[in-house]
Amino acid sequence: MEQKEIWLKSLITESPQEGYELAIQLSRMEVKSTQPDIEVLKRLRTDYANSASGLTAASHVIALNFQTISAANGYWR
Amino acid sequence: MEQKEIWLKSLITESPQEGYELAIQLSRMEVKSTQPDIEVLKRLRTDYANSASGLTAASHVIALNFQTISAANGYWR
Amino acid sequence: MEQKEIWLKSLITESPQEGYELAIQLSRMEVKSTQPDIEVLKRLRTDYANSASGLTAASHVIALNFQTISAANGYWR
Amino acid sequence: MEQKEIWLKSLITESPQEGYELAIQLSRMEVKSTQPDIEVLKRLRTDYANSASGLTAASHVIALNFQTISAANGYWR
Amino acid sequence: MEQKEIWLKSLITESPQEGYELAIQLSRMEVKSTQPDIEVLKRLRTDYANSASGLTAASHVIALNFQTISAANGYWR
Amino acid sequence: MEQKEIWLKSLITESPQEGYELAIQLSRMEVKSTQPDIEVLKRLRTDYANSASGLTAASHVIALNFQTISAANGYWR
Repeated sequence: MEQKEIWLKSLITESPQEGYELAIQLSRMEVKSTQPDIEVLKRLRTDYANSASGLTAASHVIALNFQTISAANGYWR
Repeated sequence: MEQKEIWLKSLITESPQEGYELAIQLSRMEVKSTQPDIEVLKRLRTDYANSASGLTAASHVIALNFQTISAANGYWR
Repeated sequence: MEQKEIWLKSLITESPQEGYELAIQLSRMEVKSTQPDIEVLKRLRTDYANSASGLTAASHVIALNFQTISAANGYWR
Repeated sequence: MEQKEIWLKSLITESPQEGYELAIQLSRMEVKSTQPDIEVLKRLRTDYANSASGLTAASHVIALNFQTISAANGYWR
Repeated sequence: MEQKEIWLKSLITESPQEGYELAIQLSRMEVKSTQPDIEVLKRLRTDYANSASGLTAASHVIALNFQTISAANGYWR
Repeated sequence: MEQKEIWLKSLITESPQEGYELAIQLSRMEVKSTQPDIEVLKRLRTDYANSASGLTAASHVIALNFQTISAANGYWR
């Protein structure tokens, strides 16, 4: 975050699926904010993507972000 | 996600039970988005479906998605 | 889920306690959806019902489902 | 739950602190619903009440129930 | 809780930061309600305050309580 | 917290991304409130920033704080 890049302009998306994709992007940023080193991230990604509990924990965070984004969009009703 | 397939058109369902089924579908997609390799997923699925803590963690994610979908549907009142 | 049995007709219940019982039913279905084999479920149930962390994790899912159902019922006010 | 005892009449309480006490009662019922054997519960309680992670996990469930009860009471505003 | 001391009069606070401090107080009470023995608590506190996963789990509970208190205060808008 | 420094003036931010940055700041404060010793924090940070499960748990707390802040801001609609 040395250079201020705008990566999150809005929580509003055109469709539920785009909202879901934003939830995934948010989840990745949340990890990157804690561990900015891409090489470390790649190694750890292999760890959790091959562990049942790691995958479930990662999907939990996506589900929470999706809940936030769904509310933001009035659930695309 | 190479080819953009629309798998999430709406959070609105006809009934609570269909909402529940959508919650399960969402939970599976959240896992698949992190680990797209079907063979790995199958192996890991055996892991967590046979572990008490794995099963509970998986059901936690389903419950969270069901909360989102229930709110989206005005709780089918 | 081969034969479509309707087990979740409504989130609306007569009383908070019935809402609580529905939360427990939901929590069990969420586990069963991931592991449909009743024999495996029975064995795992013994595992987590005799482990402090397993029990707490299970009660966490019940609490989340109860939150959803309470909101659905306008908190029975 | 053989005999239907009414233990949860309402989510509405007089004050925040009574709401907090109801959250604790709910958390205990959620555990008891999964493990009804009082002797086992007593033994496990000693386990988690003497473990940092067990205590934190238990307090997480109380916090979630307190969130539900607080919303039910319009936050006692 | 032998003598009924009123420690939670209201969820309403003057400012976000006071709300945050109440969230911390609530989190501590939630632990104390499960383990009232101050000596045990002190020992366990050393455990989790020196463990990465223990600290993260504790901060998760604070974040949940802060969510409840923020909603109670209409987010101090 | 010996000297009362005001670090949380408002949950309201100009944009979603500033809200996200506030969520990260909150998450760090929640850890610091439990473990104020900066040297210990630095050491533990290395632990969880290099562990897949530690990183996911940390990002979970950020996601929860972001949900609170997003609601506070009416989702910047």
